[in-house]
Amino acid sequence: MSDKKFAVIGGGSWATAIVKMLTENLEEVGWYMRNVFVKEHIQNQGHNPNYLSAVEFRPEQLRLTNDINEAVRRADVLVFAIPSAFLLAELEKLQEPLQDKIIFSAIKGIVPETGLIVGEHFHKEYGIPYENIGVITGPCHAEEVALERLSYLTIACADEKKARMVARNLSSDYIKTKISDDIIGTEYAAVLKNIYAIAAGIAHGLGYGDNFQSVLMSNAIREMRRFIKRVHRMKRNITNSAYLGDLLVTGYSVFSRNRMFGNMIGKGYTVKSAMMEMSMVAEGYYAAKSARLLNEKNEKKIRTPIIDAVYNILYEGKDPKKVFKKLSEKLD
Amino acid sequence: MSDKKFAVIGGGSWATAIVKMLTENLEEVGWYMRNVFVKEHIQNQGHNPNYLSAVEFRPEQLRLTNDINEAVRRADVLVFAIPSAFLLAELEKLQEPLQDKIIFSAIKGIVPETGLIVGEHFHKEYGIPYENIGVITGPCHAEEVALERLSYLTIACADEKKARMVARNLSSDYIKTKISDDIIGTEYAAVLKNIYAIAAGIAHGLGYGDNFQSVLMSNAIREMRRFIKRVHRMKRNITNSAYLGDLLVTGYSVFSRNRMFGNMIGKGYTVKSAMMEMSMVAEGYYAAKSARLLNEKNEKKIRTPIIDAVYNILYEGKDPKKVFKKLSEKLD
Repeated sequence: MSDKKFAVIGGGSWATAIVKMLTENLEEVGWYMRNVFVKEHIQNQGHNPNYLSAVEFRPEQLRLTNDINEAVRRADVLVFAIPSAFLLAELEKLQEPLQDKIIFSAIKGIVPETGLIVGEHFHKEYGIPYENIGVITGPCHAEEVALERLSYLTIACADEKKARMVARNLSSDYIKTKISDDIIGTEYAAVLKNIYAIAAGIAHGLGYGDNFQSVLMSNAIREMRRFIKRVHRMKRNITNSAYLGDLLVTGYSVFSRNRMFGNMIGKGYTVKSAMMEMSMVAEGYYAAKSARLLNEKNEKKIRTPIIDAVYNILYEGKDPKKVFKKLSEKLD
Repeated sequence: MSDKKFAVIGGGSWATAIVKMLTENLEEVGWYMRNVFVKEHIQNQGHNPNYLSAVEFRPEQLRLTNDINEAVRRADVLVFAIPSAFLLAELEKLQEPLQDKIIFSAIKGIVPETGLIVGEHFHKEYGIPYENIGVITGPCHAEEVALERLSYLTIACADEKKARMVARNLSSDYIKTKISDDIIGTEYAAVLKNIYAIAAGIAHGLGYGDNFQSVLMSNAIREMRRFIKRVHRMKRNITNSAYLGDLLVTGYSVFSRNRMFGNMIGKGYTVKSAMMEMSMVAEGYYAAKSARLLNEKNEKKIRTPIIDAVYNILYEGKDPKKVFKKLSEKLD
């Protein structure tokens, strides 16, 4: 496959990290972001003032733009790396057709308006065939990419060639890649882990310790396996890095926004005040609702005590202490 | 089953935690330790001066002794909780027969002189039938038991009734128990996790970050599954708390002696100086050798890149930086 033109959609830390990875391999990387000031700053100073600001770019290697249509027009491969809550607003601006594009999601969230994971959204709303849709997933903190600390990514696509092509363009001394054909499973794993990170945060906020955390994570990976198996049944090893590793890097991270959000809830903040304090919404907040609704639609519901606990605290106003006391009886 | 008399063998932190758990349920708990001063201190002051000193005991509830024969004579159930390196020296003092005893190991180590796990040692050396042998395993830091933070134990025994009996006597508000019939697998998991904790420490010492740690743990649980499957093939779910949870609580703990030992090696200490600095030997040090030897005996060796890496650093004097660079190519 000849070299494809890439564009990254988003100006946050994960988008910045992905642009950095791509610049290790490509002569030119398209980069769209909404914020005009940030775009100008990167163009003039060679670094993103808001995220991973220590990463230095050569501006001549970047095709920066504030016009999503320009970014889409020029690219063969689009990598979406914006919070799922902003996806629809960005897509509304689109006049360029997406039909011939290869679309990779690095979003790790559920589209709140539709309850769909990002790949499904592009498939259902834009008629993009699944062989042109892929997922870029961790375990990977953007901050460690900035430091060029060795990290592993899983690149999933139904079309193995496209998975390999994207993997090749992301790989470097400090990025190792693995390909997978489980686009539904890896994307759901990336979504669900944020709910479990909220649960880990709530537990910590309530005063539970490391012993409980390890039991919680061990139950979470089993719950994740049951959930994903119901959504998309195929042979997968849930202890692979794209599932278990991604759960661990988020569930054990004190920097995870989802874990931090949970921690505030556990310490007694209301959901609203925790959100205001963080000045942004944790992805797991939406994911908890979507996962719960999805499971309610199942004829034979699967057992998801951790998702249920998080849902009951975030959406039903239940007391975290009581909910976790009950949850602890269900774990083993 | 009528109430059995328990004796705990050992004066360290895990022994102290187990005595605490048993005193929640039993009127009298036998407790043997070598150190005369410590025994006297507990007798007079009601707490262990060296470990978990905040835990208060009622001395009249304890049958403290410095005579292992007395402890064994009076007990139906013996819980061994001493470092594996000291086990043979203690057993040499024994004149009392063990044949009629129920023996539970809380040791989490390999007998260095024989390369056997503790259950196998009692079976082979003392002819104790497997239905009278059991394992008490975490995930559980003793320090959190002292704080009465909710923790989960797995109690494994081929004889389900005995597993239940021991589980009942350890359970309380803050200790939940689960039984298992996989005494070989749970004990090997408890042994192997210490090698992986050393690996995690080495990686940290070398400057690898959280992304790598999550990939290392995700590879470690798959390696553990392959290893245990070869040793004792049976249906087991490796993501259960006794396997994965126990790996996580140790591999992510900054207090783990094994992880600390690895960290020093990663930072450039020699094996000898790291041991001297810690004034004790980490269990994983012996485990790495035994696991390696055990695998070498296999006709068809299983793939154990992490154990091999730790072995090569600890016993072959290989450079940690180079070994981990190579290891990182084998992980995914």
